[in-house]
Amino acid sequence: MIKVLVLSQHAERYRELIEDVGLRGAELHYALDLEQALPVAAGCEVLFGAPDLLASALPHCPDLKWAQSSWAGITPLLEAERRDYLLTGVKGIFGAPMTEYVLGWLLALERQIPQRFAATSWDDSRDGHVAGKAIGIMGTGSIGAHLAQQCRQMGLSTRGLNSDGRPVDGFEQCWVTDQRLEFANGLDYLVALLPHTADTDGLVDAALLQQLAPGAIFINGGRGNAVDVDALLAALASGALRHAVLDVLPEEPLPDNDPLWSVTGLSITSHTAAPTPGRAIVEIFTENFRRYVEGQPLNYPIDFERGY
Amino acid sequence: MIKVLVLSQHAERYRELIEDVGLRGAELHYALDLEQALPVAAGCEVLFGAPDLLASALPHCPDLKWAQSSWAGITPLLEAERRDYLLTGVKGIFGAPMTEYVLGWLLALERQIPQRFAATSWDDSRDGHVAGKAIGIMGTGSIGAHLAQQCRQMGLSTRGLNSDGRPVDGFEQCWVTDQRLEFANGLDYLVALLPHTADTDGLVDAALLQQLAPGAIFINGGRGNAVDVDALLAALASGALRHAVLDVLPEEPLPDNDPLWSVTGLSITSHTAAPTPGRAIVEIFTENFRRYVEGQPLNYPIDFERGY
Repeated sequence: MIKVLVLSQHAERYRELIEDVGLRGAELHYALDLEQALPVAAGCEVLFGAPDLLASALPHCPDLKWAQSSWAGITPLLEAERRDYLLTGVKGIFGAPMTEYVLGWLLALERQIPQRFAATSWDDSRDGHVAGKAIGIMGTGSIGAHLAQQCRQMGLSTRGLNSDGRPVDGFEQCWVTDQRLEFANGLDYLVALLPHTADTDGLVDAALLQQLAPGAIFINGGRGNAVDVDALLAALASGALRHAVLDVLPEEPLPDNDPLWSVTGLSITSHTAAPTPGRAIVEIFTENFRRYVEGQPLNYPIDFERGY
Repeated sequence: MIKVLVLSQHAERYRELIEDVGLRGAELHYALDLEQALPVAAGCEVLFGAPDLLASALPHCPDLKWAQSSWAGITPLLEAERRDYLLTGVKGIFGAPMTEYVLGWLLALERQIPQRFAATSWDDSRDGHVAGKAIGIMGTGSIGAHLAQQCRQMGLSTRGLNSDGRPVDGFEQCWVTDQRLEFANGLDYLVALLPHTADTDGLVDAALLQQLAPGAIFINGGRGNAVDVDALLAALASGALRHAVLDVLPEEPLPDNDPLWSVTGLSITSHTAAPTPGRAIVEIFTENFRRYVEGQPLNYPIDFERGY
């Protein structure tokens, strides 16, 4: 039997989902936090759970061979010193919810939905529309490509930015990161869906924001490190940006007394853009466990150097 | 030369657009209202403009042979006694904006965008999603079909309701009006896109609303006559409906002191869902004028009996 530790604040939910499908060949242990994990950590060959908890457990799992993250954001594990194990992530389950999030916000802003939601008098001022607009998506992985394809269905033109400028389905054109100013030139909408790596730090800076069309909208559904917040606030204050929506921030949760909460034109959505669906995560883990037992290559391996 | 009267509060805008493309064989007159129209009405063979103004001009245009409406809603002309002329409407230009309107509202409500827009503290409560939900669309013409196709792209299941239950592309199944309760059974979202005819009066009534899934959302982007407002308010008050969005009402504009403005769970969008784009309307008119001159059948003829 392979000793497996499930370490997550959602461990009980994962227990139900794993027991539903069974996990042949596993001796399963569940822990809600590091304290519960310590007594069973020794001898664990497989970890499954939240990256921050897994990172804290790494020093106590000398026999670890494979860790399956239950989140897309794996920064705590990338920052840990230890790399003598196989790390796998989760992919392919965030495209649809992120697409609903981004399109929902773009349509809501164009249609004045926050204002019309509780309108108290007739207002037939003309609303905006997304068809015919140019959207630029930073990050052309499975999430960005899903969003781009849906945007094209709705009549937007789509540009992508990625590490090597490779073409990706759904994007009319892709630019390499070094050409990000050309990529951003004249965009009506800018969406960041970047992973947290050293290469993505501060990519959304004053120079980039100045390239956008007047009154553009910016949405960050990736990670907080990508945005120079001071530059963003300046662009909002000058009116260069009409609105910004931040799902992610360098510090989460953002404290109640943070001045960002009261910035006009800025909406903060508390890291809800693409929630992790438990069942889909467990399916990724159980399929990977089957592959692990059978000695096959696992799905969604993470390259510690690249960071994704 | 064929004497043409353009009668609309937007007559000056139409003048610019028509002069851009030219209108060979026409003697053009422009009027912003009936008073301006009267001196030139006699001898006019063709009318182009707003249905309410055209209806008021009908008695003054003895030589009228063809009227081109500049709006989708043609009720004033259907209600006028006179029917000895050809009436043509506008189609194919409302599908995209209506789709943006309906999807924008559904996504905004599922994503709590009105609440998150100006949030002042961290709230990572789980939002809803549209993928996997069942939407029922009353009216399967070009607008409804456009919406249905986009909904399927976003993972919704789609049902349609029309006068004869005929299958329509984009809809997984269509029901005939008489089977509207079966059509509505268990729907998460109900959208009315019906024209104003005697057959559509009060189709959205208590019996229909009771068929929906608990916490359903209703959107009326068609005409106000389709909705039994008392039944709608009861469904909102009981919580059977989570939210309703009305773009259209029996009386427009709705007066500021109308109690509908203060109903919890009801948003009123002031007939902005699918604004008429001037250039597209003028293209329909100029193409139809060319056909008229050449004796070809016109696009989008209205059947006075059916009402669309």
